[in-house]
Amino acid sequence: MESSLKRIKKHLIKLSEFNTDSGEGLSRFTFTKEEEAARQYLKNELKKIGVEAYEDQAGNLFGRIAGDNPDAPAIMIGSHYDSVKNGGHFDGPAGVIMGLEIMTLLQEEGFKPQYPIEFVALIEEEGGRFGSGLYGSRAMVGAISYQDLLNYKDKAGISMAEELKNHGFDPKKIKDAARDPESIKAFIELHIEQGPVLENEAKDVGLVDFIVGINEFKVKLKGRPDHAGTTPMDMRKDALLSAARVVQEVEKAALKAANGTVATVGEMEVKPGAANIVPGEVEFSVDIRSKSAELVEQVKNDIRSILAEEEKNAAVEWEINELLSVDPIPLSEEILVLFEESARENNFSYKKMISGAGHDAMVMAGMTDVGLVFVPSKGGRSHCPEEWTDYEDLQKGIEVIYQAVKKLGGQDG
Amino acid sequence: MESSLKRIKKHLIKLSEFNTDSGEGLSRFTFTKEEEAARQYLKNELKKIGVEAYEDQAGNLFGRIAGDNPDAPAIMIGSHYDSVKNGGHFDGPAGVIMGLEIMTLLQEEGFKPQYPIEFVALIEEEGGRFGSGLYGSRAMVGAISYQDLLNYKDKAGISMAEELKNHGFDPKKIKDAARDPESIKAFIELHIEQGPVLENEAKDVGLVDFIVGINEFKVKLKGRPDHAGTTPMDMRKDALLSAARVVQEVEKAALKAANGTVATVGEMEVKPGAANIVPGEVEFSVDIRSKSAELVEQVKNDIRSILAEEEKNAAVEWEINELLSVDPIPLSEEILVLFEESARENNFSYKKMISGAGHDAMVMAGMTDVGLVFVPSKGGRSHCPEEWTDYEDLQKGIEVIYQAVKKLGGQDG
Repeated sequence: MESSLKRIKKHLIKLSEFNTDSGEGLSRFTFTKEEEAARQYLKNELKKIGVEAYEDQAGNLFGRIAGDNPDAPAIMIGSHYDSVKNGGHFDGPAGVIMGLEIMTLLQEEGFKPQYPIEFVALIEEEGGRFGSGLYGSRAMVGAISYQDLLNYKDKAGISMAEELKNHGFDPKKIKDAARDPESIKAFIELHIEQGPVLENEAKDVGLVDFIVGINEFKVKLKGRPDHAGTTPMDMRKDALLSAARVVQEVEKAALKAANGTVATVGEMEVKPGAANIVPGEVEFSVDIRSKSAELVEQVKNDIRSILAEEEKNAAVEWEINELLSVDPIPLSEEILVLFEESARENNFSYKKMISGAGHDAMVMAGMTDVGLVFVPSKGGRSHCPEEWTDYEDLQKGIEVIYQAVKKLGGQDG
Repeated sequence: MESSLKRIKKHLIKLSEFNTDSGEGLSRFTFTKEEEAARQYLKNELKKIGVEAYEDQAGNLFGRIAGDNPDAPAIMIGSHYDSVKNGGHFDGPAGVIMGLEIMTLLQEEGFKPQYPIEFVALIEEEGGRFGSGLYGSRAMVGAISYQDLLNYKDKAGISMAEELKNHGFDPKKIKDAARDPESIKAFIELHIEQGPVLENEAKDVGLVDFIVGINEFKVKLKGRPDHAGTTPMDMRKDALLSAARVVQEVEKAALKAANGTVATVGEMEVKPGAANIVPGEVEFSVDIRSKSAELVEQVKNDIRSILAEEEKNAAVEWEINELLSVDPIPLSEEILVLFEESARENNFSYKKMISGAGHDAMVMAGMTDVGLVFVPSKGGRSHCPEEWTDYEDLQKGIEVIYQAVKKLGGQDG
């Protein structure tokens, strides 16, 4: 019999082969022949361990080990198996392999759970083809309509509705994919960290307690465009000088908020944008993330204060345009405790941490108790060919969830 | 007989009518029918005062009042009469009208100079059509070749050589436009300030002592692109945070250098440029101008120091790529003294100042003694429809040059 580590490695290598792009990394978009091959691979692997695969009308793939009571709510385990363009082999598949391996282990030991254990491989989490990120989980919470499916289109203008039809689904029945909250006891996901924390702190696993709240907005600063040669320094309204001070304040405000709060200026446009013209207008993005909505607001207020200061001192005008606001989401404390027990019993080092990125787990938390385990990302890299997690580290994350699932699945309802 | 002020106003309004664009401001490109109309207007006006117009092989327009000795070197007065796209009515034409009005005043009073007085209306100073800025003056100093004329092309692909031919010039004889330095005693230009200094300090005229040296370069800062959600603040190499500190140092260094030194970051590109990615690379321009080459170098050294500091503290890499380096050009002290005398005699307030922008005067300074008078720009605005100089202010500038020309033209050689 194959060892668990060998299986994990085999699944990862196999899934990596279903790759649209011949270059480095992994490109696997929804409803391409590579995605179909990956789906078929997962179906076959489930079949090998005596689990029948089935799909919902959204295209998500499932497999189930029945519980003592077939009507009891299920414990779902899994993640997504699509990728971004030229992404890595782990973002998504690592969590799907977690689901597959735990199903395998449960079947090997003949575990008879009280609650059904449900493997799930979600599609189109990245939105790489149809731009409809977190699609699979959103379909499960009933957030996708037939109209949405008509609107989600790839670059060639083909809609998600069309492709669902081509693959034997009925897009008009998309609401059938919506799960009754009563039918799910928990959703447990494993994902690569996509950040450098676990590696830097030499922790085996990350146990997520919060998925951060996000506030994203644009700041526009208006000064006056002047000739860079003929306008003395003290007669300028240089919008970029003000922007430079605000950019530094964004960092300072995040450090002051602490508690893992981050704030980033990632985009900036300088107008008119000529070497010999003093910038008259600068627009830049601000992205604030924290597990506390209050801290997000605090950082934003600090930014508002520096903007008001710039208006007073540098005579620039400013405005803020909102892009995105998502509240922080607490994950299940009960499941977190089970994860901690598992980690301790296995002598794995762990870190309770926040997730700074959105995941299907975030969507599912609107419906059920959610657990999320991170495994280390080499150099914090993700969404690139260099994305890497050692197989041993992935196995540790799977082990933590495996034992938690058994406890949760064997508990009284 | 018309007053001088009336004539100045009439010329300005007339020249403003030869406008390609029906919108606001002035668009007059070289070798368009509007430029031909403006040229014809100037020829007619010269004819009216008994001065014969002629052209060189570059397309520059001249008119001459002979001196006692026809072989004595000439005192040239004028500026350019093309414009940028949707520019103003004054940038260029104000100086051409200075030349025309002084010729008129000299003829009216029957002034018989010792040295020839030569009116000049230069073309293609802005490079608006062929991208060949300072063309007219560069042709006069012999810096334009036939090959250049083949290379200078407008957006439709028509070359300057072609258009010269179409207008009766022989592009192969472009070197005939090169003047013997011995044939020119001085070049005197009037130009609008294109900056806010004269207006702010309530001065009638600006007497330019230096045209600034310019150093323009790009700075590239390399950090590391990270996920804005998953990378803690203390594990980032944010190239934009470093850039923000450098941008502020650019201002500080210019203020420290003083003496009218200016330094500007006018362009900036942030990569990869997404709201949720920490900037991995930032490239920006730096433009340093000063009347002292040492101060330009001092500012640049201060910038190098902060870059080295950023490399040390923020672990970013940097490089500098040179774009442009021009030495400061001192103008004629003798002519400046004559300007000062004129201003004092007329009770005009004046300011000795530097020119932060390049002008035909800068090119001509490589060949002869040069004088440059600035008249105030409303709000410092230029290269835009709002560009404005009061006619009275323009007249004062012309008066200052008129008296200086008479002294210079009447002097012993």
